[in-house]
Amino acid sequence: MTRNFMQLLQAQQAAGNFVCVGLDSDITKLPEHLLKTGKPHAAQEDFNRAIIDATCDFAGAYKPNLAFYSTKKGKEVLRRTIGYIQKVAPGKPVILDAKQGDIGNTNDGYVADDFDYYDADAVTVHNYMGMEAMSPFLNQSDKGIIVLCRTSNPGAGEFQDLPVPVNYKTAVEMSFDQAELAYLNGLNERYPTVPLYQFIAGSVAHRWNYNDNCCVVVGATAPSELAVVRRIVGDMPILLPGIGAQGGNLEATIDAGRNSLGQGMIINNSRGIIFAYQKDEEFGAAQFQMAARKAGLAMHNAIRTHLGLELT
Amino acid sequence: MTRNFMQLLQAQQAAGNFVCVGLDSDITKLPEHLLKTGKPHAAQEDFNRAIIDATCDFAGAYKPNLAFYSTKKGKEVLRRTIGYIQKVAPGKPVILDAKQGDIGNTNDGYVADDFDYYDADAVTVHNYMGMEAMSPFLNQSDKGIIVLCRTSNPGAGEFQDLPVPVNYKTAVEMSFDQAELAYLNGLNERYPTVPLYQFIAGSVAHRWNYNDNCCVVVGATAPSELAVVRRIVGDMPILLPGIGAQGGNLEATIDAGRNSLGQGMIINNSRGIIFAYQKDEEFGAAQFQMAARKAGLAMHNAIRTHLGLELT
Repeated sequence: MTRNFMQLLQAQQAAGNFVCVGLDSDITKLPEHLLKTGKPHAAQEDFNRAIIDATCDFAGAYKPNLAFYSTKKGKEVLRRTIGYIQKVAPGKPVILDAKQGDIGNTNDGYVADDFDYYDADAVTVHNYMGMEAMSPFLNQSDKGIIVLCRTSNPGAGEFQDLPVPVNYKTAVEMSFDQAELAYLNGLNERYPTVPLYQFIAGSVAHRWNYNDNCCVVVGATAPSELAVVRRIVGDMPILLPGIGAQGGNLEATIDAGRNSLGQGMIINNSRGIIFAYQKDEEFGAAQFQMAARKAGLAMHNAIRTHLGLELT
Repeated sequence: MTRNFMQLLQAQQAAGNFVCVGLDSDITKLPEHLLKTGKPHAAQEDFNRAIIDATCDFAGAYKPNLAFYSTKKGKEVLRRTIGYIQKVAPGKPVILDAKQGDIGNTNDGYVADDFDYYDADAVTVHNYMGMEAMSPFLNQSDKGIIVLCRTSNPGAGEFQDLPVPVNYKTAVEMSFDQAELAYLNGLNERYPTVPLYQFIAGSVAHRWNYNDNCCVVVGATAPSELAVVRRIVGDMPILLPGIGAQGGNLEATIDAGRNSLGQGMIINNSRGIIFAYQKDEEFGAAQFQMAARKAGLAMHNAIRTHLGLELT
C-alpha cells in the first residue's frame, strides 16, 4: 500500500501524538561508548535505532535534518534509519528536513532523492522561487510538502517581517487580521500591508495546496506570529520547530498553533530529546535512550495535559 | 596555498573569461556510447572530465548543480570532478550550486560538506533565513557566498517582485533608482517601495558582504531587473544563469550586467554547452566534447566581441 503523508499524520494527530522527534544526530554529540568502536557512522545508525525504539510508542513523527547525514556514509545511515522507522513504526510519518528549493526540472533530482532514495513521507522546501518552480514537489500528491514560512532563528525577521502590500479583497480572503488591516490602512490609504511571511502563508494555503499536501513551518519561538499564521492557513498542519534548545514555550505554542480540532501541530524537538542524556541526572550517556524517552514522553504528556487529553 | 574564490574569479574576469560551464550532467542525457558500459556514474564522471578538458582554456568558472549528483555514487562523482578541475585547471573557480539555507549551527554540516568534502570554492545559498542564520557560510572568507536574488524561472516574480517599503535614506544608500523612488513616493507619501529582490540585493551588498566574499544570483532571463541590481550592488560579481536552454539574451545580459570595469559577470550556460551535441550537425554524440567546446567557445567569443575584446 502506498504511504500517504497526510493520512499518516492525521492518524497520529487524532491519537494525540504531536511530538516530532528531530533526528539531528550530530556525530560529535553521540555518547562516547557508541563512538568507541571507531566507526562513527555505525554509531550514528545504532544511536538512531535506539532513539526510535525508545520513542516510537508516543512520537507523532520523525524529522531527520539532512545536514547531519551529508557525507556519503551519512546518506546511507539516513536511508537505513528511515527504513527502520517504516519497519518498527510504520504508522509514523517521516519528514526529511532538507529545505530544498531549486527551479523546475532541477528539482526533479531532489524529488527522486527525497522520495525514492530516502523514501521520506514529506520534505521541507523554500518558498522564494515560487509555486511554478516548486511544482515537481507539489505534484507529489502522496507526499507532504512543508513550506518555510516563519523560521525559528533569532535573525528570521530580516526579510520575513518585511511588510508587503495586499489589496483589501485579497487580505480578507486570506484572513489577515482585520484590526491590523484597519491600522495599516490608516498608515497607507491605498494598500494595507502584511509581513512577508503572512503573505507566503496565505499563498501556500490558498494557491500552492492544490493537492491538499502542503504544510507550513513556523518557529515555536514566535507564538504571536504563529497565531496569525494559524488564522491564515485554517486547519492546515504546521511544523513547529524551536521547542527545547531554541527556547520556545510549549504552552504558548499550543495555544497559538492548535487548529479548530485542537490538532494540526507537528511540534518538533531535536536536541532536547535525542541528547537529553547530557543534562539528565537519572540517566547518563550509557542510558541515553532512556533519557530521550523520558524527555520526549514528558513533552508528549505536557502537550496532552494542556489539550485536556488523558496522559500516556 | 589556500584557494581564494574572489582572487580566482578576478583573475578569470580580468582575462576576459566570463563563461561559466554548468555541469548539470543529467545521467539520462549522456551520450549513449558512454552509458553502454552499464556503469552510469562512471559514465557521468568520464563525461565531466571530457567536458572539462574541452572547455578549460576559455571557461571562467565551473558550476555543478548538486541535484544531478544526489545519489551516494553521485556524491563521489562530484567530489572527483571538482578534484579533476583543480588538477587540470587550477585557476578556474568551482561554484557548487546547492542553494542551501538552514539555520545557525545546522548550516555547519553543509559548510563542511561543501567546502571540506567537495572542496568547492563557492556555494549558492538562499536568503530567506537572514544574515544571522547564514553566518556559518558568510564567515568563510576564502569562499564565495552567492546569494539568490532574482531567479531565472518563469514564476520567479511570485514573491521576489513583491514591493517592500524602504525609508528614503536607506533607498538612497542602496542606490535604488531615483526616478522610480520619486514615482513611488507619489504613490505612497510615507514610504517608497522597491521589489523584494532589490531590497535583498541591497542587503547583501551593504550588510552581508562583511568579508567581501558575496555575489548575487540574477537570472539572465530578466535584463531590466539585472540593470537595477547592478546599480544596487556596485561592482560585486553577479552569477547569471538562464542563457541557453532557458532563453536569456546574451547581449542584453552583458549590457545590463557588466560592472564599471566591464566585468563582474559569471555567465552560466549548462545544457546549451554540455549537451550541445544533441543539436549540433557537425559533431554528434560520439564527439560530444567537441560540440560542447564549439558551443562554449562561440558564447565566449560572442561575449568578447560585445565587450570589444579580441577573440580567442
